[in-house]
Amino acid sequence: MHAIVIEDKQLVRREVPDPSAGEGEVVVDVTAAGVNRADVAQRQGHYPPPPGAPDYPGLECAGVISAVGPGVSGHHVGERVSALLAGGGYAERVAVPAGQLLPVPTGLSLTEAAALPEVSCTVWSNVVDRDRLRKGETLLVHGGGSGIGTFAIQLGKALGASVVATARTSKHDGLRALGADLLIDYSTDDFVTGVRAFNGRGADVILDIVGAKYLSRNIEALAPGGRLTVIGMQGGRKAELDLGLLMAKRASVSSTSLRARPLADKARIVAAVARDVWPLVEAGAVKPIIHTTLPLAEAAKAHELMESSDHLGKILLTP
Amino acid sequence: MHAIVIEDKQLVRREVPDPSAGEGEVVVDVTAAGVNRADVAQRQGHYPPPPGAPDYPGLECAGVISAVGPGVSGHHVGERVSALLAGGGYAERVAVPAGQLLPVPTGLSLTEAAALPEVSCTVWSNVVDRDRLRKGETLLVHGGGSGIGTFAIQLGKALGASVVATARTSKHDGLRALGADLLIDYSTDDFVTGVRAFNGRGADVILDIVGAKYLSRNIEALAPGGRLTVIGMQGGRKAELDLGLLMAKRASVSSTSLRARPLADKARIVAAVARDVWPLVEAGAVKPIIHTTLPLAEAAKAHELMESSDHLGKILLTP
Repeated sequence: MHAIVIEDKQLVRREVPDPSAGEGEVVVDVTAAGVNRADVAQRQGHYPPPPGAPDYPGLECAGVISAVGPGVSGHHVGERVSALLAGGGYAERVAVPAGQLLPVPTGLSLTEAAALPEVSCTVWSNVVDRDRLRKGETLLVHGGGSGIGTFAIQLGKALGASVVATARTSKHDGLRALGADLLIDYSTDDFVTGVRAFNGRGADVILDIVGAKYLSRNIEALAPGGRLTVIGMQGGRKAELDLGLLMAKRASVSSTSLRARPLADKARIVAAVARDVWPLVEAGAVKPIIHTTLPLAEAAKAHELMESSDHLGKILLTP
Repeated sequence: MHAIVIEDKQLVRREVPDPSAGEGEVVVDVTAAGVNRADVAQRQGHYPPPPGAPDYPGLECAGVISAVGPGVSGHHVGERVSALLAGGGYAERVAVPAGQLLPVPTGLSLTEAAALPEVSCTVWSNVVDRDRLRKGETLLVHGGGSGIGTFAIQLGKALGASVVATARTSKHDGLRALGADLLIDYSTDDFVTGVRAFNGRGADVILDIVGAKYLSRNIEALAPGGRLTVIGMQGGRKAELDLGLLMAKRASVSSTSLRARPLADKARIVAAVARDVWPLVEAGAVKPIIHTTLPLAEAAKAHELMESSDHLGKILLTP
């Protein structure tokens, strides 16, 4: 089969061996695969795949099961699925642990379904599972225009929270249409002032992709009892933490990535997303937001677009 | 009545006005009051009482209700209680919001009951409520010989966790008797190495009183998915945080204090402690560990002892 592999920090289309369905796995014929900023980091050499994962990038896909390995029950050849991957989505076929399969939400095409696994599992595991965002609270989403951002805005609103998002002004109309209550252009306005003025106390939960550069301002922007979750470090990884301010706010800072979690943990998250998030998608409260769909062979162009940050929503690849 | 007030960073016995039971409050005639390290910080000017709290120190007591204010139901004059205070415990009488009253656990004297409110609410709100310590996990307790430490060791064991504690060697026998599985003398041994060698992965929850000086080593000592809670800053408040390491471990850092929480939040914690922790006390699984009981007039000596860190367990004052 063909896949997009990384050679000298470039994405190149190559013939690679077909994957086979190992113990507890299925093989999915890929209809569409999502592009994530982590794939860019992997291409640049900053985010190596975990042991056992394919060398080539791709953290999510949707398609049709073409083989079922030993020890798998409840799945069959010909079944339409979406999937959270540890890698290997930029390909015609990919092997997936059965615990990372999700149904295709009713009403969605396979291409639309490919836009959801990574963002839904990432946002749910941080904002809901760990940080327990509650109705009436305020969620601050940095990078509101990203795949993660567009999903988090909608999920926050669907859970009854108010949502503040940072994004360039050019994206504000699009994000307002997704339900964001306040949009802040980070290039011209201070988000600490903005979120405090919005509700008089600051953000109860912050979903951050910037890291070190925003750490102290994020803590300033937290409400009492606030929770900051860092899921990206585009602004560096090391910064001074003022524990005194953290204590005064009874606040927490956490950081996670999905890919390195143990299989059982991923399966737990995937099952919870199917149970708690898919009904919101099927009801139309949370929609896959797709900026563009490109042929798999144009993966390099997809990464250029991702790095430009000019997109709003997900970038997908179709083999 | 008499109380111990702070004058020029000294503790002095003075005649002060009697407290009265305001809306939703009762007055407790104090049998014994607990001494906490936060009282030392308050005396030194680092930890001012929150608005509405008495100026003089004392975060917990036990005694007998002598007056019931308007709007209080379910309590009566003559009732034996313990109480979590926002201040004012170093006195003959103190006014307390009814939501911060706890029963005296069956089998305990009033003096013994005075040793429990602050440590039980602090440890429960951090280790159980926020950090969800689970059976089979490993809890690392810094300052194992303190009031907080001796309580946390016992509660961790009662919840089915393994407990590692740091303390000077002279305290190890006493802490082993409380159930600690591993004791580390922080002055001679590295706790990061110690806790990793203990279970092969590090601490799932760390309860820390040191702050900045331990921040990076505490994160190194965390297991994947670990939670670090900082409740004291004897080693400073500002330190570099490596978000990349936090992400690699899927870890969190939080910090809280009990005193500044809203009344409703304190009442929720107190009710949960009465429900979840008092049965463990009544069953003998968690005991009040009292180092010494001094007359209220010797409060200054109690602070000297607290600052020496020579004590093992709680220091109490009796009016």
